[in-house]
Amino acid sequence: MNPLDQIETPVVLIDEKVLDANIAGLAASSASRGISLRPHVKTHKVAQIAAKQLAAGASGITVATVGEAEVFADHGVADIFIAYPLWPDELLLRRIIALGERIQLRIGTDSVEAVSKLASFSAVGGRVSIELDSGHHRSGALTGEVLSIARAGRSAGVLIDGLFTFPGHSYAPGASVSAAAGESAALGQAAALLEADGFTVRHLSGGSTPTAQETTIAQEIRSGVYVFGDAQQWELGRAEPADISLTVLGTVVSRHDGDPALRRVVVNAGSKVLGSDRPNWASGFARLLDHPAARVSVLSEHHATVLFPPQTPLPALGERLRLVPNHVCLTMNLVDRVLVRKTDGTLTDWTVVARGRNS
Amino acid sequence: MNPLDQIETPVVLIDEKVLDANIAGLAASSASRGISLRPHVKTHKVAQIAAKQLAAGASGITVATVGEAEVFADHGVADIFIAYPLWPDELLLRRIIALGERIQLRIGTDSVEAVSKLASFSAVGGRVSIELDSGHHRSGALTGEVLSIARAGRSAGVLIDGLFTFPGHSYAPGASVSAAAGESAALGQAAALLEADGFTVRHLSGGSTPTAQETTIAQEIRSGVYVFGDAQQWELGRAEPADISLTVLGTVVSRHDGDPALRRVVVNAGSKVLGSDRPNWASGFARLLDHPAARVSVLSEHHATVLFPPQTPLPALGERLRLVPNHVCLTMNLVDRVLVRKTDGTLTDWTVVARGRNS
Repeated sequence: MNPLDQIETPVVLIDEKVLDANIAGLAASSASRGISLRPHVKTHKVAQIAAKQLAAGASGITVATVGEAEVFADHGVADIFIAYPLWPDELLLRRIIALGERIQLRIGTDSVEAVSKLASFSAVGGRVSIELDSGHHRSGALTGEVLSIARAGRSAGVLIDGLFTFPGHSYAPGASVSAAAGESAALGQAAALLEADGFTVRHLSGGSTPTAQETTIAQEIRSGVYVFGDAQQWELGRAEPADISLTVLGTVVSRHDGDPALRRVVVNAGSKVLGSDRPNWASGFARLLDHPAARVSVLSEHHATVLFPPQTPLPALGERLRLVPNHVCLTMNLVDRVLVRKTDGTLTDWTVVARGRNS
Repeated sequence: MNPLDQIETPVVLIDEKVLDANIAGLAASSASRGISLRPHVKTHKVAQIAAKQLAAGASGITVATVGEAEVFADHGVADIFIAYPLWPDELLLRRIIALGERIQLRIGTDSVEAVSKLASFSAVGGRVSIELDSGHHRSGALTGEVLSIARAGRSAGVLIDGLFTFPGHSYAPGASVSAAAGESAALGQAAALLEADGFTVRHLSGGSTPTAQETTIAQEIRSGVYVFGDAQQWELGRAEPADISLTVLGTVVSRHDGDPALRRVVVNAGSKVLGSDRPNWASGFARLLDHPAARVSVLSEHHATVLFPPQTPLPALGERLRLVPNHVCLTMNLVDRVLVRKTDGTLTDWTVVARGRNS
C-alpha cells in the first residue's frame, strides 16, 4: 500500500529529490554567472531547507521580518538580510540591535525619517541598504530621492552599504525581461549617484524568481519560490510540472458528473491550506499536478471546486489528488508542519519554524 | 500613552464590546423569529468566543473539519455539527466514531458512496445530515438525488436526521434575497420528498451571514462572520464600520506623496496576516476603518499598498492604522494569538486554538 494513503488530508507534501535539484540548479547557474545567491526564506520558513541552501553555497539568507530573522538566527544562520523598509520604533529598534550583536545583519530603509533613527543599530555593526522603486510602485525610493536618504544616514552615523530593489511587476506573462531591465537601470543609476557622492556601494541586490536569470547588474539575487515552484511559475513558463517540489495532497469529497458545464469534483483543500492569491492572468486558484486540463474554478476555505473538461475522466470519491498552489509562500505560512518524501522514499516531517512570524 | 503603541505590529485586534454586541444582536433576532442559531466557529477558532455564543443561547456550534470539532470538544463544547461532506476513509471514520462517543455529533454527506460507510458512526449515536446544492454549485446533492442518498443510508443503518445547505452565492451585491429564496426552495422540496418516503426530518439547516435575516424555511442558521464583520460585509451593506469588531493594526513603513495617481502609504500588514481573498466586486484587498476613502490597491505578503485620493491627508511614517480584512475567517487562521481590548479597556490575549486544523 502507498504509505501516503495512511496520511490525513489535506497535507502539504514536499518531494525532497525535486527540492534538492531546484536548490542545486539555481546555485550552479548563479555561481556560473558570478552572482551571489541569498535566497528568500519567507517562501519556506523551514530550517532544514535554509541549511540545504547554505550548504549549496548561498551567501546568507533573506527574510521579510525581524521575527523571521530571529527564528533563523536561533537555528544557526549567521548572515541575514531583512529586505524590508523597517520602521524602527522603540520596540523594533531594540530587537534589531540585539540581533545585530549576534549575527551579520543588514536591513532595508526607504526614507530619511527611518534611516535617521538607525545610528544605534550601526553602532553594533548593523548595515543598511536603501530600497529602490524599480517600477513595482510599492515601497522603495525613486532615483531622485536616494541621495538625500544616504546623506541623512551618513549624517546620523549610519552605515549605508548598498542598494536593493524588488521587481515584483515581473510576476505577469511576458513581464520578466522589461522588469529585469528596470531593475538594472534603477540599481545602476542610484549606485552611480551614490559613488559620485563618496559612498562605497558594497552590494546591489535584486532578483525575483522570474528575473533571476535576466538581471544584468545585480551582484546578489534573492529568489525564493524556486525551491518549490508553484502554479504561477508554471503558468508563466518558469517551471515545468517536473520541477514542482511542493503540492497539497487532498481527497475528493464530492463528485458531480451530471451537468457538462459543471463536471466537477470538490477536494478538501481550500484557501486555508492553499492560500487564495489569484492574479488576473491565472487560469484558476490552483492547478492539479496530474491533471493539467483541470481547473480550480472556485476556492472556499475547505473546498477546491475542480472543473474537468468533457471527455476527461472525473476522479472518484475518495481519490487523492495533488494540488499545486498558485503562490506557494502563502501555503507554507498556513501549516505548522509539512510532510516530506525523502530521497530514499521514506516519509518524515519538518516544522515550519517561522510560520506566522509577521512582526 | 495609548497602550496599543507598545504592541508589535501587525497584530490582530478584537474589540470585545463590539464583539459582545454582535453576538447578542444575532442571538436576539434569531430567538425572536424562533430560529435556532448554531454559529460557525471556523470564523474565529477561539474557545472564549464559542463560550460567549453558547452563553447567549446558541444551540451548539458548527465546524468545517473533524480537527476543529476535536479541539472544541476538548474545550467543553458538547453539541457540534460538522457541516461538510466528509469522506469517511478508515482514518477519518475512526476519529468521528471516537468523537461521537464523547459528544452530540452531526456530520454532513452528499453521496450514496459516503453515506453507505457511516453505519458504525450511527451505532454510537452519530447523526447524518444530507447537504443540498441550493444554487452555489459546490458540494451538495441536487433535489433529484436526495432520496437515493437517504435510502442508501437507511439500508446501511445510518441515522439520517435532516438537511442542510450553504447559499454561498449570497456573497455578492444584491444576491442575498434570491440566494435565500433558493435555499428555502431546496430545503422545502427535499424535505417533502423525504417525508413522503417515511423519513422524519428533524432539522433544516441553512443560512450564511448575508441570508440569515431572510431565510423563510431554515429552522437553524449557521452564521459565522457576524461576530466580527469584515470588509466584504461592509461593502455588501451588511455591516457598518461601527459593527466591525476585528481589525489588523499595522504601521506605516513607507510613504509616497509625489505622484497624484499613486499617493500612497505602505502598511506592514500583508496577505500573511490579512488573507488575500478578493471577490471581483470588492473595491480592494482590505479597507481602513478610520479612512473610508482609502483603498488597498495591492497586497503583497508583508505590504498593503494603500492609495489615498487627492486632498485627503496622507498618514505619517510610523502611524498606526486599523485594517479591516476582506474575509475575516482567513485572518483568524493566520495567527496563533489575538489581542483583545476588553470591555473595561484593558488588554488581554486569546489563543486561536483551532488555527490550522484543516483535517
